[in-house]
Amino acid sequence: MNFSGEMKQKVNEIEAILDEYLPAAEGYQKQIMEAMAYSVTAGGKRLRPMLMQETFRLFGGEGKVVEPFMAALEMIHTYSLVHDDLPAMDNDEYRRGRKTTHVVYGEAMGILAGDALLNYAFETAVKAFDIAPEKSLQIGKALKILAEKAGIYGMIGGQVVDVASCGKGLDEAMLNFIYELKTGALIESAMMIGAVLAGATQEQVRTVEKIASDVGIAFQIQDDILDVTSTQEELGKPIHSDEKNEKSTYVTIKGLDEAAKDVERISEEAVDLLQSLNLENPYLTWLIQELVHRRK
Amino acid sequence: MNFSGEMKQKVNEIEAILDEYLPAAEGYQKQIMEAMAYSVTAGGKRLRPMLMQETFRLFGGEGKVVEPFMAALEMIHTYSLVHDDLPAMDNDEYRRGRKTTHVVYGEAMGILAGDALLNYAFETAVKAFDIAPEKSLQIGKALKILAEKAGIYGMIGGQVVDVASCGKGLDEAMLNFIYELKTGALIESAMMIGAVLAGATQEQVRTVEKIASDVGIAFQIQDDILDVTSTQEELGKPIHSDEKNEKSTYVTIKGLDEAAKDVERISEEAVDLLQSLNLENPYLTWLIQELVHRRK
Repeated sequence: MNFSGEMKQKVNEIEAILDEYLPAAEGYQKQIMEAMAYSVTAGGKRLRPMLMQETFRLFGGEGKVVEPFMAALEMIHTYSLVHDDLPAMDNDEYRRGRKTTHVVYGEAMGILAGDALLNYAFETAVKAFDIAPEKSLQIGKALKILAEKAGIYGMIGGQVVDVASCGKGLDEAMLNFIYELKTGALIESAMMIGAVLAGATQEQVRTVEKIASDVGIAFQIQDDILDVTSTQEELGKPIHSDEKNEKSTYVTIKGLDEAAKDVERISEEAVDLLQSLNLENPYLTWLIQELVHRRK
Repeated sequence: MNFSGEMKQKVNEIEAILDEYLPAAEGYQKQIMEAMAYSVTAGGKRLRPMLMQETFRLFGGEGKVVEPFMAALEMIHTYSLVHDDLPAMDNDEYRRGRKTTHVVYGEAMGILAGDALLNYAFETAVKAFDIAPEKSLQIGKALKILAEKAGIYGMIGGQVVDVASCGKGLDEAMLNFIYELKTGALIESAMMIGAVLAGATQEQVRTVEKIASDVGIAFQIQDDILDVTSTQEELGKPIHSDEKNEKSTYVTIKGLDEAAKDVERISEEAVDLLQSLNLENPYLTWLIQELVHRRK
């Protein structure tokens, strides 16, 4: 099978893990479980759990201890989208061609479904203690990374600065800050947790963090490039949205040529660093290059 | 010093711990840290961290391992209030005499401040691993309780049913469900975590869960009673609010006399169970009786 076929199979496997960890919809509070599942099963690249699992494999990780963390991270990513779409935030009615959670379930339930997903992410991650009690120390470290990279020094921090700077214009330093935190932090979380749970050394985890940071930033710059250069058909969502929203992006600040060069440079650095680890996971190398060079 | 004086001192000690664990307001994302501190430092009874610490002491717990959990639980309680007050939820402009978070910082920041507090609660709790690495197993158990009691099978579950049943009237079974989850779950969390971190046995933790459940329900019924029998001056907030909101409460369903009898019966059961543990913490016994018999 080629890597592209492998990717489809891996997405299916990840979605089976997500299904396994989503709560059964039952009891008086059935509706919230339905709202949680509605947003989590809406599709997507499953990039974060995939990077976590592949990094886990890169370091020789075996067994199911990584699975609750894979599900947890995707729940965190999903809750951030559910809250992002709320009327007081981006006020989006559609995502991935489906009505957004608050449009289907009402605004109060949209807020609560996001809260429930964030909380359930930790409820899910701690199940790793039952799967591999002998790895309590690594699981503790992984929980620390999960929480830190999702919070005010990670994703939420980036989100806050993005919201606060809306319509004010951004300089390059602030834009980098937002990219590193809003997009980069969860990708760092994914790869670092995979490494930690597989028993990587502290130094290796630091290298993985740098690789992931590069991947996150290159991924986000490519997003900006596609918004300008792609077609709506190819991308599957409206193009020129940044221009319409008068949003400062890497492309508006540095220009298209510079942006494309930076994607190359940063993703090459990521791949070089990955090779410097002297470990084997050809699929992971392919995945990183695929992500930053994607056309949609 | 009498118990009442002791309580004031303990509140001060708890607020010092909260201050210690709140993030410093700095960096591009300074505003969110300010919004978090604004809501957490707004006062309140500090009931949950106090019950946690006193239960920890009841079982002979020593050292600081309980402190990050005390702060974490108060952050979870606070985030739930911040989101409760949002326009799409209860739409409250004031709480404890101060403007609510979203009124001061805007609705988007209100949503994000709540998210940030919930996330930071787990970020804070995992610091216990650094304080007492030799207690990793108990800390893992405590994290599990923290997450479960705050989520869809705990506080959020009660909140969801409360929101969904608004204006529809409630039967007694559903009302009990809401009280047990919305109010009871975090009190169970408080006392169970205190017990677990102090090394209580599984059977003792189960007894503590039952005590805490009783305390939570008696506390909530007393809330309903005070809304009918107290004065605005005494209570420090508007009375007859349940009647105005056409809300089903324990008092509207069972009547004032029955409600008062049930508070007695349930709180007596809690104190009997506490004594059945054959451990000594007179302050905790006093606190439980004080809470359910409070006049405000």
